Amino acid sequence: MAPTLDFDKLDGLVPAIVQDHASGDVLMVGFMNPEAWQTTLRTGKATFYSRTRQTLWTKGLTSGNVQLVKEIRIDCDDDTVLLKVEQVGGAACHTGHRSCFYKQVNADGTLTEVGRPLFDPKEVYKK
Amino acid sequence: MAPTLDFDKLDGLVPAIVQDHASGDVLMVGFMNPEAWQTTLRTGKATFYSRTRQTLWTKGLTSGNVQLVKEIRIDCDDDTVLLKVEQVGGAACHTGHRSCFYKQVNADGTLTEVGRPLFDPKEVYKK
Repeated sequence: MAPTLDFDKLDGLVPAIVQDHASGDVLMVGFMNPEAWQTTLRTGKATFYSRTRQTLWTKGLTSGNVQLVKEIRIDCDDDTVLLKVEQVGGAACHTGHRSCFYKQVNADGTLTEVGRPLFDPKEVYKK
Repeated sequence: MAPTLDFDKLDGLVPAIVQDHASGDVLMVGFMNPEAWQTTLRTGKATFYSRTRQTLWTKGLTSGNVQLVKEIRIDCDDDTVLLKVEQVGGAACHTGHRSCFYKQVNADGTLTEVGRPLFDPKEVYKK
């Protein structure tokens, strides 16, 4: 029995934050519909609903960089999921960065890139 | 000049993840409209848009548990914000828990409460 989440606040979706279980770094945020939530629980691999492609999406199926779920938390309102994962390949972002949150906002509004890509997206995604 | 975010994917909002800057614990998730984003940048206090109350909401105005922004990151797609904060009072959740993500999902689908509340919500919110 999966815990019941409140999918009503966001048109059938809940945000799912993915955190590296070892470093605590926030890697990315995706969205889950009920099927993505059930699939994540059943398979132990982080699975989301792609809003742009309107389809279920198991992270890493193309790149090999799957996310193995080590721990799952839900929040006080049952409307947000936190996955603590082992990030296979080390990089969660499609740009090759370890985390999608690699742009730091400076006090003057400019951005600083934090870290360097671990892989070349052109090689991995063959686009 | 604030970095431009993509508010279009979520009807004028972006998710904002709040992480304790010292421990790395994910404390909560809120949503920002452009005004909340600008207010957070200007004041250095985490400010969100309340979807239920349809109003701007600076976290901690009632409880005193404001979130002092130490670092701001944005993601690869410019549609999600990560705030690294100092959580005044130690607890981010309206239940008194340090983090809103205090419910751990077990393998059998049951939940385990992680940690204990740091304050009594009845005392703090006088409801």
